[in-house]
Amino acid sequence: MPDRKPVFLVIGAGAGIGGHAAMRFAAGGYHAVLARRSDEESLGRLIDRIEADGGSATGTLLNAAEDGSIEELVERVERDIGPIEAALYNLGAQIGNRKLHDTPHRTFELGWRLGCFGVYRLAHAMFPAMVERAKSGNHGTLLVTSATSAVRGNAGQHSHAAAMGGRRMLCQTLNAEFGPQGIHVAHILVDGAVDAPDTLGKLLGDKFEAFKAAKGEQGVIDPAEIAETYWHLAQQPRNCWTHEVDIRPWTDVAWWNDNPNPEIDASGKGFAGPKGG
Amino acid sequence: MPDRKPVFLVIGAGAGIGGHAAMRFAAGGYHAVLARRSDEESLGRLIDRIEADGGSATGTLLNAAEDGSIEELVERVERDIGPIEAALYNLGAQIGNRKLHDTPHRTFELGWRLGCFGVYRLAHAMFPAMVERAKSGNHGTLLVTSATSAVRGNAGQHSHAAAMGGRRMLCQTLNAEFGPQGIHVAHILVDGAVDAPDTLGKLLGDKFEAFKAAKGEQGVIDPAEIAETYWHLAQQPRNCWTHEVDIRPWTDVAWWNDNPNPEIDASGKGFAGPKGG
Amino acid sequence: MPDRKPVFLVIGAGAGIGGHAAMRFAAGGYHAVLARRSDEESLGRLIDRIEADGGSATGTLLNAAEDGSIEELVERVERDIGPIEAALYNLGAQIGNRKLHDTPHRTFELGWRLGCFGVYRLAHAMFPAMVERAKSGNHGTLLVTSATSAVRGNAGQHSHAAAMGGRRMLCQTLNAEFGPQGIHVAHILVDGAVDAPDTLGKLLGDKFEAFKAAKGEQGVIDPAEIAETYWHLAQQPRNCWTHEVDIRPWTDVAWWNDNPNPEIDASGKGFAGPKGG
Amino acid sequence: MPDRKPVFLVIGAGAGIGGHAAMRFAAGGYHAVLARRSDEESLGRLIDRIEADGGSATGTLLNAAEDGSIEELVERVERDIGPIEAALYNLGAQIGNRKLHDTPHRTFELGWRLGCFGVYRLAHAMFPAMVERAKSGNHGTLLVTSATSAVRGNAGQHSHAAAMGGRRMLCQTLNAEFGPQGIHVAHILVDGAVDAPDTLGKLLGDKFEAFKAAKGEQGVIDPAEIAETYWHLAQQPRNCWTHEVDIRPWTDVAWWNDNPNPEIDASGKGFAGPKGG
Repeated sequence: MPDRKPVFLVIGAGAGIGGHAAMRFAAGGYHAVLARRSDEESLGRLIDRIEADGGSATGTLLNAAEDGSIEELVERVERDIGPIEAALYNLGAQIGNRKLHDTPHRTFELGWRLGCFGVYRLAHAMFPAMVERAKSGNHGTLLVTSATSAVRGNAGQHSHAAAMGGRRMLCQTLNAEFGPQGIHVAHILVDGAVDAPDTLGKLLGDKFEAFKAAKGEQGVIDPAEIAETYWHLAQQPRNCWTHEVDIRPWTDVAWWNDNPNPEIDASGKGFAGPKGG
Repeated sequence: MPDRKPVFLVIGAGAGIGGHAAMRFAAGGYHAVLARRSDEESLGRLIDRIEADGGSATGTLLNAAEDGSIEELVERVERDIGPIEAALYNLGAQIGNRKLHDTPHRTFELGWRLGCFGVYRLAHAMFPAMVERAKSGNHGTLLVTSATSAVRGNAGQHSHAAAMGGRRMLCQTLNAEFGPQGIHVAHILVDGAVDAPDTLGKLLGDKFEAFKAAKGEQGVIDPAEIAETYWHLAQQPRNCWTHEVDIRPWTDVAWWNDNPNPEIDASGKGFAGPKGG
Repeated sequence: MPDRKPVFLVIGAGAGIGGHAAMRFAAGGYHAVLARRSDEESLGRLIDRIEADGGSATGTLLNAAEDGSIEELVERVERDIGPIEAALYNLGAQIGNRKLHDTPHRTFELGWRLGCFGVYRLAHAMFPAMVERAKSGNHGTLLVTSATSAVRGNAGQHSHAAAMGGRRMLCQTLNAEFGPQGIHVAHILVDGAVDAPDTLGKLLGDKFEAFKAAKGEQGVIDPAEIAETYWHLAQQPRNCWTHEVDIRPWTDVAWWNDNPNPEIDASGKGFAGPKGG
Repeated sequence: MPDRKPVFLVIGAGAGIGGHAAMRFAAGGYHAVLARRSDEESLGRLIDRIEADGGSATGTLLNAAEDGSIEELVERVERDIGPIEAALYNLGAQIGNRKLHDTPHRTFELGWRLGCFGVYRLAHAMFPAMVERAKSGNHGTLLVTSATSAVRGNAGQHSHAAAMGGRRMLCQTLNAEFGPQGIHVAHILVDGAVDAPDTLGKLLGDKFEAFKAAKGEQGVIDPAEIAETYWHLAQQPRNCWTHEVDIRPWTDVAWWNDNPNPEIDASGKGFAGPKGG
């Protein structure tokens, strides 16, 4: 049996970030395993694309919220496909803005299952083999696509921010325990709209094209470029690892900023600093 | 029937922060409702103490992890005791340092239930009545005792940091939605050991006294003083609200610092800045 | 000669935060020393008010940007008035929003002198005596009124944010070295408009009243209430110190939030999180 | 006259990060301009190396603290060498740990001049031409090598942290104003020892080699790898820009963490979270 290629496992492989990351890593020599909850046709198209470009890939449906599903997938991949040297957890549970009382208990819990618990389960299942392989120099990588809800909680984001905030801290604890064992954990804050038909496209529906046009030239993040940064992170050698990265289009205001260049700051916040008063 | 006192509800009323907060608010005119998971004797002693000082209090056992328990308690208090004008969520799920593979799935989930989901459930149950009362000027208060795991993830803290990180973001989303509706949400980072027999005392066992002695003069936080800061937060008027506060003893290094006054920084980090090289 | 009262020194004592803090500490038994750059009449009115309420105060003009001025003031106060047990550095250099090329070198430097270098100079001059007195139990306090520019840099805030960002880190280094020596350093982020005629009032001119009206009921921070929180911080015992605090009116969006309750997030940011795409 | 290559300007081009960044950008087609305060021999060696590899470079001495020096250099480069399309500000003022009273006023000010004011001056001088060129699609880049002192202030770091904290906020304000005008501003937190003879090597003297050996395999950051990440940042297209990045070796504890894997957390901090007490 020929040598098995290293595997790049994508949990949440839609046509946006997940799919493009899979394509990039496949072009880089990995066998991409793409997992998503539904839409086998879309999965098939991604795999066809990768294979047409000379890469190799496998697709599978995965309900990440279901107990045992992530664990079974990791086991199956390691056994039947190849060693998971890099993985991308690309699921969140962004449902748009909902008031607290429009966020039922089961929604809040699902946000946690997909946004936080799933990362824990993936690491729990995947890291022992990664740690073993790291002993011979092959460091492992876990990339986690995240959002600004991981660092600040906006109104209407109760479920998502709780899940993302927990996830971010978990990425730090995983990094603290496993970095020194050879697993590179990186948390990527995507702070802007991504040209992704399966996520943003779905949420905005027929307003998607107009939205992108209104953003102007290069005003929406190209998922292929995010994939390039993901590739760079995975290639960083062990003595030069980045744990956290933010990404946004040049015209977007960073999450920490107020609106750009106000003539006069209506809230008075621009002038809240003391001046001897 | 005489006018009912406003209620101060404590979820997690042990002999440390929770109990002292209850005593302080009772002294300030609230009827304190103390809820804890077990140890009715201890609850009884706290209530006796409050009543001996001229205040009023009620105690109840509560398994916060159990579905419906928090909701039932809130309903019962509003119906039978009085309007909840302030509440303290004082539960975490700190279990000490455990490697990822010594943190079973059910432990990770319990951390979330106690540390994060419980806050969401309490707000969900409690806020509608608070918002109504706020319309006539009586603003409500939700205080959440938190830990440094809410802002940084140490090795061994997988469950706790994920829960606390989620909780912190949730406190921000709750503040964003409900601040303008008259509910003051405050998140308190306790960054140091608290002289609390039921939590730290239990974890350190017979090493507790020696530990406190080794900390030196006023080297451990007095929960009665935390209670004073909680009282101050609850008294802040609506035009002067604080959302986040940190607390530590004078001799403790803040969580963001390395060890104090190293002669030479062994990791070289003190010299990692560029100087033209 | 009768015992000298402990001194509360305010660098930047206008009619807003500085003046109200002076009034609060004077009411609490300190002799308030109010220093401001100009307007002796205003100083006089503040002192009259304090004395009318039974407290004691001294006023002095101070050009904090001038070399030696802060040092000379500290020396004079210790010698002629009393021991400085608490101080408030209440100067910033907020000049409103200016593009980089409308921010001349001397403006950028003045921002640093008033916003950052002055804090260093005050600590340098004041701490040795404070440390000595702390040995007998009288801990010292340094409060620093700050702004959101200390934690995030908006367009147009080049000078102010550079100064505030430096100040915030300096407050952390001062806290790290001097906390264990008995000096309580606290950094207060004022995240909202303050009803202060000398600062916000001056900047907004005749729009000030309309601005406050538009903010709605209790929509602007009352500096007397900030003074209460400053008083609370200064009273915290050594085993329960807070280093950082934020303050805003209930209706203001926290600096980390986007606008509240958008129906649809125009930038798409609300939907930037991954959902399997 | 042949077309001029785009220029990569390095302020602080020693043999570590600055020199390696210059080499990487030269290999990528830029003409590297290396500026450092002293040691023309070292500059000469770097230029020889770049030219031996087929690239082009110029070296110059620069006293960045001196008024007009940075401005004169930018003007000279634009006039005589080529358009500055990317720049790296690689100066800090790390002097090791000094108590406040071992940090004289002139030292504190020099830290600001080199660490913060210099960045402002470089942007002020360099951005107008960059903005012009960006209108035709050629976006500009400003990279700033920074340290953990930009995000937290350790004891002994008064001058350095004040300078770095100000610099970080300035990078955010520059990004806010100029990102939408086509200038990519990136702030890189180097959180670990760098194998740099001119900085860390100088500070540790004859202990340098032993220090690196003690760090273990790949325990010190290779500046050539930092240069790769700098190159990646500069190549990010306008719709996918990163503003902040951290870098450390796999075995180093991140600045936000306590020591790894303590059996029992001696300060009690690991157990400071509430558990119903």
